[in-house]
Amino acid sequence: MVSRTAAALTAATPAIAEAHFRAEAFPYHPVSRPDGYLNLGTAENRLLGDLLDRLAAELPPFSEPDTRYAPLHGTPLLRERIAQLLTACYRSPVDPENLVLVSGATAALDVIASALCDPGEAIVLPAPYYGAFDTDLGGRSGARLIPAPLSSANGFALDLAPVERALCLARRTGATVRAIALASPANPLGQVYPAEHLHELARLAEEYGVDLIGDQIYAHSVFGPRPFTALETLGSPRVHTVWGFAKDFGLPGFKAGVLHTTDPEVRAAARALAYFAPVSTGTQAVLTQLLADPDRTAGFLAENRRRLAASCAATVEQLARHGIGHVPAEAGCSLWIDLRDRLPEPGFVGERQLWRTIADRLRVNILPGEAFHSPEPGWFRLCHPLDASVVAEAVARLGTLPAQPAAAPLEWSHR
Amino acid sequence: MVSRTAAALTAATPAIAEAHFRAEAFPYHPVSRPDGYLNLGTAENRLLGDLLDRLAAELPPFSEPDTRYAPLHGTPLLRERIAQLLTACYRSPVDPENLVLVSGATAALDVIASALCDPGEAIVLPAPYYGAFDTDLGGRSGARLIPAPLSSANGFALDLAPVERALCLARRTGATVRAIALASPANPLGQVYPAEHLHELARLAEEYGVDLIGDQIYAHSVFGPRPFTALETLGSPRVHTVWGFAKDFGLPGFKAGVLHTTDPEVRAAARALAYFAPVSTGTQAVLTQLLADPDRTAGFLAENRRRLAASCAATVEQLARHGIGHVPAEAGCSLWIDLRDRLPEPGFVGERQLWRTIADRLRVNILPGEAFHSPEPGWFRLCHPLDASVVAEAVARLGTLPAQPAAAPLEWSHR
Repeated sequence: MVSRTAAALTAATPAIAEAHFRAEAFPYHPVSRPDGYLNLGTAENRLLGDLLDRLAAELPPFSEPDTRYAPLHGTPLLRERIAQLLTACYRSPVDPENLVLVSGATAALDVIASALCDPGEAIVLPAPYYGAFDTDLGGRSGARLIPAPLSSANGFALDLAPVERALCLARRTGATVRAIALASPANPLGQVYPAEHLHELARLAEEYGVDLIGDQIYAHSVFGPRPFTALETLGSPRVHTVWGFAKDFGLPGFKAGVLHTTDPEVRAAARALAYFAPVSTGTQAVLTQLLADPDRTAGFLAENRRRLAASCAATVEQLARHGIGHVPAEAGCSLWIDLRDRLPEPGFVGERQLWRTIADRLRVNILPGEAFHSPEPGWFRLCHPLDASVVAEAVARLGTLPAQPAAAPLEWSHR
Repeated sequence: MVSRTAAALTAATPAIAEAHFRAEAFPYHPVSRPDGYLNLGTAENRLLGDLLDRLAAELPPFSEPDTRYAPLHGTPLLRERIAQLLTACYRSPVDPENLVLVSGATAALDVIASALCDPGEAIVLPAPYYGAFDTDLGGRSGARLIPAPLSSANGFALDLAPVERALCLARRTGATVRAIALASPANPLGQVYPAEHLHELARLAEEYGVDLIGDQIYAHSVFGPRPFTALETLGSPRVHTVWGFAKDFGLPGFKAGVLHTTDPEVRAAARALAYFAPVSTGTQAVLTQLLADPDRTAGFLAENRRRLAASCAATVEQLARHGIGHVPAEAGCSLWIDLRDRLPEPGFVGERQLWRTIADRLRVNILPGEAFHSPEPGWFRLCHPLDASVVAEAVARLGTLPAQPAAAPLEWSHR
């Protein structure tokens, strides 16, 4: 018999991880396995292999001092270098003392949720939202996640009305909401939020006395024209953000995430929680070296943005060729594509059927909107930073899905 | 405002970590800082620097595949190699599928406690016990730790009577005990438990329907004549053990711990919890290489045991020269030393005074028995795997403590 928390977690193993490892086990190859799986389900940036190998060759091996105990919320030097990096990106000073390094952005999200929420307290999230937030923010903390459904009619823009409705409803039912959380830049949408929308969101949070949690893991992966607005620049003291090396540096296996908070009490709590999820000093030494030369880092990140932009543009072209719509993306690893007119029947039942067809018959791993609490069925997240031929093959396979004679009606659900 | 769990954790920041970093900031040096701090408070094995540097030089740098997502409970190859290592040491087959790798032994202890215990459920521990268990096992799970006081009269041998008393008392008061936990080899005592004592403990656990949690982090650090008995050999299906690279390999910064459980439900829960505390694939690649050659590994571990034995023997000699008693140690990094006759006044009040004198006046960092829930005041844990001159200087400073004219009476407390 296991504990209640453990039983709930076991039951809710993130679908994202399962789908990923299944697809990775039998990968597509144009010659040796043309009927293999195409994994466009995981937001893994695979455009940076050559750059990473070149960097790795320049780094010294670990030495004995790298193996010793170090402060469990990150070595001072690595936090200093991350603070420099984020200060430039956020255009807002980041103090290394306000950074808490833990073993991945997932752990950082768990830390902030556990620091803020007692079990049963709530976090409101504009939806669709990154599906793993359910586990990351709620799995150990016991926080309850409340989706605030955005509308496809305006391209899922960050609309305050549904967020405020969710806050009001929670208040009326006696629930304590502790925070509004969102990924910025957006995931799965790939949007860069306009500064004025984020300012309005911060005002709303203040009005309702709740904190703002921002997952800024794509902060350096903005390739569209709109500038990134860090939550740190909104003038609110109750902002807590997460960043990591997984996306912008293409180092998802390194599991290095960082929480930034200027609230001393939350910071103390986060440091105490970091004790349970520290990052290896060996990996910290590698990351410290990786950030040693700010010019080299800036060049690396700029090249990443160029490659992401090219990958996104090529994918959009493929989608257009096959008559598949999408929400325009300006950042990140994914496109939110529109398969509403391919649904075999209306509603999320139809979306699940379509997902199975795509996964089993087409052998393409993309995640259904339902996994992101999409307010409307028929949307899927497609991750594009892969070999261009893999993306082209996947989109071509998706293009074989027949448009349904009676297109599925737009059915709304708040789930 | 932070959550209740976070507030409790913040209030209970482990004294061990704080004392460590204070002492490390101003270290003793025979010439440049003869009045500096001597840190014998942390169970860090610093005898292996030359071996680690030699190994590090042989390891290849990371390459791009090492940076990708991998199963979050450890790569198959690393788990396989750890399983081989533990199979040899435990003299009991360890299946890699039953290993869950997480970011440190602390995380592994948190995982097993959280998998087993709902908040308020209890774990019984023979005391003195490793002080950080309070946080590791109880901090996030909400489990309550109940010390079962052993007796100095028989050298703190693993006596079942107090353990059974604690189980009975808990049962009478309506508390649900989920497990008995202990470090084996013992910490702070440095004992290797006789097989028959462990068998009796397993029978007691079975009788009371509770699991056994074993922290076997010193499994390869046994230098005395008595062979190590792994809990896995007791024939009980409800045994869960923790091991890591911190002590036996002298890699505390690498934060790689592993839980071993043959219970499928607990394993599933542990894998779900590992999602929040994964180990960097970069560090996993290094550890996989480190274990690549079983002969090299066996040689490394044998040399470690030789060095630990020599360090322990030299420390015992110094202690004897200064008239300080101790419990004979057969494993690990520490000696449990007897300063009962130096207590300035009776009880733990006197122990706290003596600790302050040792820390502030003698500038020696050793941890007081109270931090290990010692049932009797006047005992301290001294960690010896350091430069021999540092240990000699520390013991010499301790030797200046005056024996109290009226020796403190033996006062027992169950705290």
